[in-house]
Amino acid sequence: MRTVDVIQKKRDGQELTSEEISFLIEGYTAGTIPDYQMSAWAMAVFFQGMTARETAELTLAMARSGDQIDLSAIPGIKVDKHSTGGVGDTTTLVLAPLVAAAGVPVAKMSGRGLGHTGGTIDKLEAIPGFSVELTEDQFTKQVTGQGVAVIGQTGNLTPADKKLYGLRDVTATVNSIPLIASSIMSKKIAAGADAIVLDVKTGNGAFMKTLEDSIKLAQAMVDIGTEVGRECVAVITDMDQPLGVAVGNGLEVQLAVETLQGKGPKDLEEVCLTLGSYMLVLGRKAATVEEARTKLQELIANGSGLAKFKEFVAAQGGDSSVLDDPSRIVQVKEIIPVHAEQDGYVASITAEEIGVAAMMLGAGRETKESQIDLAVGLRLHKKSGDAVRKGDKLADMYVNRTEEEAVAPVRRKVIEAFRIVSEPVTPEPLIYAIVTKDGVQKQI
Amino acid sequence: MRTVDVIQKKRDGQELTSEEISFLIEGYTAGTIPDYQMSAWAMAVFFQGMTARETAELTLAMARSGDQIDLSAIPGIKVDKHSTGGVGDTTTLVLAPLVAAAGVPVAKMSGRGLGHTGGTIDKLEAIPGFSVELTEDQFTKQVTGQGVAVIGQTGNLTPADKKLYGLRDVTATVNSIPLIASSIMSKKIAAGADAIVLDVKTGNGAFMKTLEDSIKLAQAMVDIGTEVGRECVAVITDMDQPLGVAVGNGLEVQLAVETLQGKGPKDLEEVCLTLGSYMLVLGRKAATVEEARTKLQELIANGSGLAKFKEFVAAQGGDSSVLDDPSRIVQVKEIIPVHAEQDGYVASITAEEIGVAAMMLGAGRETKESQIDLAVGLRLHKKSGDAVRKGDKLADMYVNRTEEEAVAPVRRKVIEAFRIVSEPVTPEPLIYAIVTKDGVQKQI
Repeated sequence: MRTVDVIQKKRDGQELTSEEISFLIEGYTAGTIPDYQMSAWAMAVFFQGMTARETAELTLAMARSGDQIDLSAIPGIKVDKHSTGGVGDTTTLVLAPLVAAAGVPVAKMSGRGLGHTGGTIDKLEAIPGFSVELTEDQFTKQVTGQGVAVIGQTGNLTPADKKLYGLRDVTATVNSIPLIASSIMSKKIAAGADAIVLDVKTGNGAFMKTLEDSIKLAQAMVDIGTEVGRECVAVITDMDQPLGVAVGNGLEVQLAVETLQGKGPKDLEEVCLTLGSYMLVLGRKAATVEEARTKLQELIANGSGLAKFKEFVAAQGGDSSVLDDPSRIVQVKEIIPVHAEQDGYVASITAEEIGVAAMMLGAGRETKESQIDLAVGLRLHKKSGDAVRKGDKLADMYVNRTEEEAVAPVRRKVIEAFRIVSEPVTPEPLIYAIVTKDGVQKQI
Repeated sequence: MRTVDVIQKKRDGQELTSEEISFLIEGYTAGTIPDYQMSAWAMAVFFQGMTARETAELTLAMARSGDQIDLSAIPGIKVDKHSTGGVGDTTTLVLAPLVAAAGVPVAKMSGRGLGHTGGTIDKLEAIPGFSVELTEDQFTKQVTGQGVAVIGQTGNLTPADKKLYGLRDVTATVNSIPLIASSIMSKKIAAGADAIVLDVKTGNGAFMKTLEDSIKLAQAMVDIGTEVGRECVAVITDMDQPLGVAVGNGLEVQLAVETLQGKGPKDLEEVCLTLGSYMLVLGRKAATVEEARTKLQELIANGSGLAKFKEFVAAQGGDSSVLDDPSRIVQVKEIIPVHAEQDGYVASITAEEIGVAAMMLGAGRETKESQIDLAVGLRLHKKSGDAVRKGDKLADMYVNRTEEEAVAPVRRKVIEAFRIVSEPVTPEPLIYAIVTKDGVQKQI
């Protein structure tokens, strides 16, 4: 087999065989196929797309390219959750203990934040003592015992995807739905998930800016799941503003606790209940999403979700008493309000700008090497649809660098993120659609 | 400027600026832009094409990437001729002396053969003593004095094109008309041509298999010429069979002599007269192609063309007496006939198979390092349209390796190259179209 012939076949719009896809991915991982051939192939895929079968084969080939986590020793259906990335996305902190409390084993591998998006691992490390470094044996035992464990990415998972993603980033071939879908799904499959609930963000703060593209990506991922025998459901959720009201590591832990106490912001709670309900259904702990939702609401009301969070934190060496008083982990030099400069109504809040503002305060990493401050961040006081008057508090900045030259640009960024209009606005729907193997089931 | 943004711009179908194209080509030549970005860009060009302006800018940028030959010291309009490559293409050997005899200075840089196609340099070297190694000064002096000189490719001409062509070859991005057109034209421009007559082959033995694609390529090259101020005319000629009757280095010299004596095969003579006429018109040595054709016919009839060939050969150290008896350079151990195995009519002769057969005899190079035998080759006795009876001679093989195991596969290849049908056939037209800056002027 010659690589150039495989590239040409895709260039000319033909479907590649399983052998051809394996040949490409194995050769690329081993270094026998050079970058310049893979980038030409990726550009051909950008224009010609891939069939569902090809996309699934690519996903499996990338999953096979490195270590694959074996979770079969853990009883039950391991349901993973993946978000395509947003700002203020505290859902994992809420959902991991909540669905574990409902009996779905959560064996989660998470990442760190980069740029304007946060990472679950950083958020959990805001809890003193919390360790994300477990051996495979410890990880398996904890999931079996406590029902939930979260670790950082270990081993040599999907090296083909890492290499290909790096290449796509510099060759203008990122924006291809089959390549995005297979990249995400290969990692989930290599991490051992039996079933996956996907949170596909849509809107100005999301990777996918339009609902149409978000649905296409969701369908591509669900199709992969169907092809490879991992049941998948995708929920299309709004990212025309940050989710919830907290952006920053400790602040998001605090908000997760509030949400598990039933006192969280409505949007975060709703997204958690929706995603969590599908996790329960896929994990066979509820027959319908309605039944699942009732169950999750009960686990919030009776404190079981929060209790599971404490148990989980303690199991990974964290100081679980922090969850009784999360204000302890958001102690900063100063909390500085950001005030509205005009009257009107909040039409949208550019999530990316809010994420960048939090990063500028030290909550996020500009580069992989950046040091972060786990206590700082933003807490929003207005969300889309809210009326504001000049001087109203839009947000609080939790800061440790209090000099005006550090604070002023952040304040400016926050003010610019709020698009304020003169007429009342109806906020965008929070949940746009549910995509399952049977199609787009619900669209508001 | 970031390469990834330039790739993305092309990917999204936008026109690149002159600065962006120079940035790419300069960076690629210097090695600051890696292969994997150029191949992704080339694939984007494959899908999105380039405007005439972009193609011209690319051509100039590649011409600028290395040495550029300055022919301005030579008086007159230097008209170059380029063929997109075929089998039995003896036109340069006929035309170089013939148009020089008409007063058009011919300062030609030619290449060697590879695979099934021959090269003018190899053919000239079949003449004992002929040297293609002239200094720039000798070259200029000879063109000024004798009106014609042919040298091998010297110096560091269009390194960007060499590098990009090598990359395209392994990334399935060869087959893009603006990339093919700019590759050819960049070399002609760097070689110092004032005007260019292009012989674009079409048919089974040509790079462009269809007339439509051949015309598109011709138009792209003529457009480049127009954009960069080098007048161009393209002649679309048939390559559904080899041109003329000789394939092999000495054999083609012999055929060129016969053609300059007015005794050549009609197809070769016609293509030479057509190309040559446009060369005279572009070189301002005739007002019309009709006038030019008459002039060239006179130069054949009165022996001036052949006399100029002898003068040119002698000037470059060759034994010009060979041209009085070219059979001296095709002395081989044996001339073995190939006979028809069935009755019928010749519908076509696959040029590539004839070229490969000649290569197998030793006339051509399998790899760049192969040694070639200048005397061996094929002489065809039947051409398209001819009636044949079983046992008729289709061709003579001029061989030095006479063992049956060396000869038999060549014989088989020759027989397979001839497509013989039962009904009489009208041969394909020889000249399909003339493409000038005013469009496709003539289409038979």
